[in-house]
Amino acid sequence: MDNRPIGIFDSGLGGLTVLKAVATLLPNEDIVYFGDSKRTPYGSKSKETITNFSRQDVSFLLSKGVKAIIIACNTASSNAIDELTKEFSIPFIEVIKPGSLVGSQVTKNNKVGIIGTKATIESNAYLTNITNINNSISVFQKYCPLLVPLVEEGKLWWNHPITSAIITHYLSELIQQDIDTLVLGCTHYPLLLEVIKNVVGEKITIVNSAGEVAKAVYQTLDDIKLLNNQGNGTISLYTSDSVDKFTPLASEILDNNELFIQTIDIERY
Amino acid sequence: MDNRPIGIFDSGLGGLTVLKAVATLLPNEDIVYFGDSKRTPYGSKSKETITNFSRQDVSFLLSKGVKAIIIACNTASSNAIDELTKEFSIPFIEVIKPGSLVGSQVTKNNKVGIIGTKATIESNAYLTNITNINNSISVFQKYCPLLVPLVEEGKLWWNHPITSAIITHYLSELIQQDIDTLVLGCTHYPLLLEVIKNVVGEKITIVNSAGEVAKAVYQTLDDIKLLNNQGNGTISLYTSDSVDKFTPLASEILDNNELFIQTIDIERY
Repeated sequence: MDNRPIGIFDSGLGGLTVLKAVATLLPNEDIVYFGDSKRTPYGSKSKETITNFSRQDVSFLLSKGVKAIIIACNTASSNAIDELTKEFSIPFIEVIKPGSLVGSQVTKNNKVGIIGTKATIESNAYLTNITNINNSISVFQKYCPLLVPLVEEGKLWWNHPITSAIITHYLSELIQQDIDTLVLGCTHYPLLLEVIKNVVGEKITIVNSAGEVAKAVYQTLDDIKLLNNQGNGTISLYTSDSVDKFTPLASEILDNNELFIQTIDIERY
Repeated sequence: MDNRPIGIFDSGLGGLTVLKAVATLLPNEDIVYFGDSKRTPYGSKSKETITNFSRQDVSFLLSKGVKAIIIACNTASSNAIDELTKEFSIPFIEVIKPGSLVGSQVTKNNKVGIIGTKATIESNAYLTNITNINNSISVFQKYCPLLVPLVEEGKLWWNHPITSAIITHYLSELIQQDIDTLVLGCTHYPLLLEVIKNVVGEKITIVNSAGEVAKAVYQTLDDIKLLNNQGNGTISLYTSDSVDKFTPLASEILDNNELFIQTIDIERY
């Protein structure tokens, strides 16, 4: 047993869907979450910039004494994981492998669709992971740059007809390819789950990577004997921009109006 | 006459609409443009973060020996101008006042609409400026967070039915208020001009702040004897993220496939 907290970082608010899934599965674990709202989004930026930002995010979490770090951002997972594991000795759990594994297990016709940010899709991380697991699977990818700003604009948009039209636009190519499985390759997208379900219909199985990551966290911590079964499940939230910018949407996502959030200067780390 | 370049900065690519208008009106002026693509967008961030970023943007342009600085970003103009003019002695031309002035002159029924980013609208900069000019004008404001990501996703979206639906959604309140003038309070929005025109119809006059700013630049430089009538009109572009991320859309906006762009480390300034 190890009662140090788990660290989670994301480019902003999307990673809170992962936090929620982890806190539900592992209610005794303390969690320190950092959302880089000052520099959000990561998904439209270069690999080098994403890696530099991620390095600072990890350094901040290490300063909080975490025992393992969840990279709750597909963009950072797909672009920065190699550098981070080279530079830091702490265990990392990233979000690409769990989604890839389940996606490759769920498909029956071996046609899997992936949606994510531009940087995630252009990294080909899902494609590589899935074809490494089973090279008879065809992977169809599509980047969907508008979905993160849509989620971040607020709950009004999460189930709006315009959102549905945008998702229909993005997914039409993948549906034409006859995919039977769709992996949500961005931690913001579970918040659009209802609309996405309506657009793809019942024939396509949706893989929500947030839930899969929580299971991977449990597995990893159990393997290396770092689970905490007796803690209080304290959640500490940090942001790089003002608390006022972070609180409204964080409260919506976590369904909790009594969050304690602090601002930190991420460029110091 | 002063043959030093004019400096322009923006949170990313939107300010290129101002560059284009300035270069057309003042073809002999050399221009140094900086777009902060690494930390874009500014419009969803706090006043403090926007001011800190803007301070670094100005310091970079000063290192290039500019004679005046255009803040080609409504968010930075509305949130950082007071601090910048306090800290730096160089002449600044910002984008709020020219749009406010024309908006207040154009309206006949004294009902003016303003659209912009969240940070611009929440600063009330347009409202304050317009009511200072003529306090019998009613100002109706609406922030439109999705429009910048829409523009930045690429030309496909600039005249798309979904874009039209989003703009209709944002503008319906302002149209119901019977505005006869709409100020585009974001330098990205001129790229959506055709769609906006179709949505508002012929009864509402659209004020494109990019064009108004170019006139203000001419006026300011002429007043303080800093115009350059004999230069080559050399344009130098700098970005804080990779050149590959900046080039495609910059080429679209400037209608020029032979741009010379360099990456700089903005956090050093």
